Amino acid sequence: MNAVRNKVNEQIAAKKSLLCVGLDSDISKIPPLFRKAERPVLEFNRAIIRATREHAVAYKINAAFYESRGIEGLRDMQDTLESLPCESLSIADAKRADIGNTSRMYAEAFFDHWNFDALTVAPYMGEDSLEPFFAYDQKLVFVLCLTSNPGSADFEEQRLESGSLLYESVLGKVRGWSRNGNAGIVVGATKSALLADIRKAAPELFMLIPGVGAQGGSLQESAALGVDEHRQGAVVNVSRGIIYPQGEFVSIDAFEEAVEVKARELHNEMRSIF
Amino acid sequence: MNAVRNKVNEQIAAKKSLLCVGLDSDISKIPPLFRKAERPVLEFNRAIIRATREHAVAYKINAAFYESRGIEGLRDMQDTLESLPCESLSIADAKRADIGNTSRMYAEAFFDHWNFDALTVAPYMGEDSLEPFFAYDQKLVFVLCLTSNPGSADFEEQRLESGSLLYESVLGKVRGWSRNGNAGIVVGATKSALLADIRKAAPELFMLIPGVGAQGGSLQESAALGVDEHRQGAVVNVSRGIIYPQGEFVSIDAFEEAVEVKARELHNEMRSIF
Repeated sequence: MNAVRNKVNEQIAAKKSLLCVGLDSDISKIPPLFRKAERPVLEFNRAIIRATREHAVAYKINAAFYESRGIEGLRDMQDTLESLPCESLSIADAKRADIGNTSRMYAEAFFDHWNFDALTVAPYMGEDSLEPFFAYDQKLVFVLCLTSNPGSADFEEQRLESGSLLYESVLGKVRGWSRNGNAGIVVGATKSALLADIRKAAPELFMLIPGVGAQGGSLQESAALGVDEHRQGAVVNVSRGIIYPQGEFVSIDAFEEAVEVKARELHNEMRSIF
Repeated sequence: MNAVRNKVNEQIAAKKSLLCVGLDSDISKIPPLFRKAERPVLEFNRAIIRATREHAVAYKINAAFYESRGIEGLRDMQDTLESLPCESLSIADAKRADIGNTSRMYAEAFFDHWNFDALTVAPYMGEDSLEPFFAYDQKLVFVLCLTSNPGSADFEEQRLESGSLLYESVLGKVRGWSRNGNAGIVVGATKSALLADIRKAAPELFMLIPGVGAQGGSLQESAALGVDEHRQGAVVNVSRGIIYPQGEFVSIDAFEEAVEVKARELHNEMRSIF
């Protein structure tokens, strides 16, 4: 049994939600009222977490947004991670991978040092570059498969001589690398026409589906096509569509209310598939 | 004119060396005599830098080895970067890439915040995922092309329907993405049979060639095949083969001497191609 996979599947069933809140928290975009705080991004994130915890089953911390501010940012990442509800899945969106001895260090960083439940990784360098992540059989490893951006056409959607597209080849290999159900894939919501095929080809893989909202993917469709036969096994990430509500906010309470309204809306859209 | 490219090419010509020293500094592997220091990895790195600066034209900091120790490790990374000779090329080996707004944050992290001269990035997500790195036209961006590990067979060396191998397709696209000569590629030294073809196909790209030493690639061959028509435009990375000399060391001086001997040996091997 994979502990984190069970944890998130239980949350999905209990809340009837696949909502993953993406903490792509950009210090230049957070409402002015947080800027007075000693640690604006951390206070912003904590407000988002309070406002969404009833609706979300997972939180995705986008490492880049923290690394861009160096050690101060990493400190915000650490304290944000510690502020997450323990029942929700914590995902480090970091898209790492390197030769084996280096990937082992990345795995140590995210799984041991920071103690995330899950991590996104990149497949280009092949099996031995990902093995050190899959060695953690109580965690979840999300391999990039078919992403939501236009550049997915450059390589991911290229057809191989063997007949399959590159991302299909990635999908097939990831199925073989899974240990104790710890393999997942990233499939962009903007590719929902292909989500059903991918789910059919890999019924057992956990799916992380980003790209809803700012990137244009449909939430309901992604949710309906992404879940496994038990209506579990997938989370749909929304970042900018939740964390930056329109309007000016006079208080943190007012901000949280706006975020909560947005999260509830998304949650309600997803309930229909359960 | 690309400032960092010029800088490293001048060093290559002046020193008749392509040596890049890889600071994959693993706290569990550094000699016991550094463990007494308040910051063992930083002191170890500074000793390596002192011992190699006459021979090296570049230093590659492998981000994973610093991230694995969290904020303390990142502090060592920062102070190591600041300890590098300003005339040498500083490379962050971090293999980042994500959707555009996220890659922009990674570019900010490594190019603005830490202020590295160069960064390694991963191509799987395609053009818009790498554009924010190429936007820095006074830096160097090394895109993974053909890597030194066995897993390169899984995807990199797969043949596309178009006839080219995946890494050849990456190579072709990277050539088009270069701005002001800021594009480079990573080609493993274990693939030296293919280095000549790659250099011929992309005479203008800067090459980062890892995989010499512990990974089994030949230094002299890689150097001879990797350079451009001016005998510049490439650096050959050695990490474990330099930073962990055999033996027990009674003093930092003795350790530095052993490292210097190894670096000089590698430097001399390379001189023959100039």
